[in-house]
Amino acid sequence: MTEIIYTTYPVEGLDKVLNGIDYDSLFVITDSNLKKILFERRPDIGSYLESISSDIITFPEGECNKNISTVCDLWTLLSERGASRKSVIINLGGGVTTDMGGFVASTFKRGLRYVNVPTTLLSMVDASVGGKTGIDFAGLKNEVGTFAFPIATIIDTDLLKTLPSLQVLSGMGEVVKMTMLRSRQDYVSLIKDFFATDDIIRKCVEWKKEITEADSNETGLRKLLNFGHTAGHAFESILTERGTNDVSHGMCVAHGIMVALLLSKFLMGFPSERIYEYKTNILSHYRMLPISCKDRELIVDKITHDKKNSAGCMRFVLLKDIAAPEYDVPVSRDDLESALDVYLMNEF
Amino acid sequence: MTEIIYTTYPVEGLDKVLNGIDYDSLFVITDSNLKKILFERRPDIGSYLESISSDIITFPEGECNKNISTVCDLWTLLSERGASRKSVIINLGGGVTTDMGGFVASTFKRGLRYVNVPTTLLSMVDASVGGKTGIDFAGLKNEVGTFAFPIATIIDTDLLKTLPSLQVLSGMGEVVKMTMLRSRQDYVSLIKDFFATDDIIRKCVEWKKEITEADSNETGLRKLLNFGHTAGHAFESILTERGTNDVSHGMCVAHGIMVALLLSKFLMGFPSERIYEYKTNILSHYRMLPISCKDRELIVDKITHDKKNSAGCMRFVLLKDIAAPEYDVPVSRDDLESALDVYLMNEF
Repeated sequence: MTEIIYTTYPVEGLDKVLNGIDYDSLFVITDSNLKKILFERRPDIGSYLESISSDIITFPEGECNKNISTVCDLWTLLSERGASRKSVIINLGGGVTTDMGGFVASTFKRGLRYVNVPTTLLSMVDASVGGKTGIDFAGLKNEVGTFAFPIATIIDTDLLKTLPSLQVLSGMGEVVKMTMLRSRQDYVSLIKDFFATDDIIRKCVEWKKEITEADSNETGLRKLLNFGHTAGHAFESILTERGTNDVSHGMCVAHGIMVALLLSKFLMGFPSERIYEYKTNILSHYRMLPISCKDRELIVDKITHDKKNSAGCMRFVLLKDIAAPEYDVPVSRDDLESALDVYLMNEF
Repeated sequence: MTEIIYTTYPVEGLDKVLNGIDYDSLFVITDSNLKKILFERRPDIGSYLESISSDIITFPEGECNKNISTVCDLWTLLSERGASRKSVIINLGGGVTTDMGGFVASTFKRGLRYVNVPTTLLSMVDASVGGKTGIDFAGLKNEVGTFAFPIATIIDTDLLKTLPSLQVLSGMGEVVKMTMLRSRQDYVSLIKDFFATDDIIRKCVEWKKEITEADSNETGLRKLLNFGHTAGHAFESILTERGTNDVSHGMCVAHGIMVALLLSKFLMGFPSERIYEYKTNILSHYRMLPISCKDRELIVDKITHDKKNSAGCMRFVLLKDIAAPEYDVPVSRDDLESALDVYLMNEF
């Protein structure tokens, strides 16, 4: 449903997509900071967007702005500048931009077509493929959103070269997650060398595309992608509410995976030595989360509210082993509390 | 895609739908006024909703509340009361409720299932079938929304018996519109007797279901349903902004149809005598709109901004004759101004 274009020159990819469709106007949604930095570093992108008469709409950067207030600002700008149903929106940026820009596009005039041009590792392998759009609401991540596929996603790993290391680390959380779900061999190479090669990125994107197109509404297989996210989202939500700086999605996922691995050991016989291996070779790249034993009840509460959980019943994606996942595994409050105890006492 | 249940006892229809699906909690979205009136007149409905442990969420009645602020309140209530992805929402009310409730359902946690129980003629024949959800934004009707089909719509014409005449008139606008598009014979009976029989209501609902399921995203045939709405929405939007009381959707559509018929005469050879017939036997049931020649430019501006029009090019649904419609007919600014001149000078 979504065309994925791999290129080392995003302008070329965009040009290919835009030449193949009929539209009457183009809007680029990006954050003000990226616009400044990217257009300085890559003047070709700025010139191209100017040459196709696109209207660039910006919002203030940051996950804290991924909310309904920013969405209203973007809807207003689109309305004022005459966006029609035949307009196309280009989301240029990281996960905040592709998630929120996709939501804006999918709801303005009941849905405009949109293209994602991810500029971070995280949004390449995760947010920009699969058709999930969303914003945070009432203190919960992506509590409001839609399922709406972009017409195309342009993957240009060259854009990652100047990415700050903290953002690369964040993307690596998702790369690790997908690799643990799908390939023992690729996981071994990540254990040896904690780096997302073009080949690994491509495999992650293709795998995500395949899974999400087979199960776009998350009734089955797609649930696998939530591996590490149940606890990860709870951590992220708590830390965001506390205003903690430098908390990235991928970092929370990396820690969420540790909770999932502990549960996997208790409930699915996941080998202990692999937990040690994960801790030593993967989690060690991330700093400790400022979360303590005192937060245990809050974490459990957040997980109970996770949109993937029906009221009163928690379900996790767990692993029998690397590349042997199971979704919808029921987890009791006791099990979860035990896993959190081990996690919190070990201060990973 | 949507099951339509005709019943003379809505509780029976709801029971049938709910017995056929798996859910963990039920939420009813309705306006505070309807809740009071309906539960007084039909205690069976109140008792039933209580017996199935549904959680009733209300918002202040009125089109002026069909906005993002009310949507945020409803999302918040759902979140606080623990709605999950397995929850089902029942929209009980008129078009404002089914449009906005559908939008809330389709965006909360990326989409919950919902059932429409329309309580007005307008929402029975129009809003509750076809999967269009929406709210008004930036002074434009349904500027924000989604395409999301209810799992079922319960049609109980018994609910209409106590409907105020102004609301019946509003619904008749849509009944007339659909009948003009689909059947010369039924139109003749409406000309003779301006009343929506159960038979006509059922035919309208079935026809709308058929058309909207064949073309859910409005790329072709579905556009027919916009007949009378291009000018009608402009009227409605202008009068709502001015705070004019008692302006109903159907009344604006009835007047919008007159503009479309004048254009149909200019551009498609629609017979003059039928315009006279429409004026005498249909439009005469509605009062004049408080719109004057001074508003001509404003109307044209609103129409140019209509979400169905690509920038710079206006397209209307016009009739060659009754039951012989065409969509996407290009209309120049000159043509539209001429039609509006005739309409405004005649003070219909």
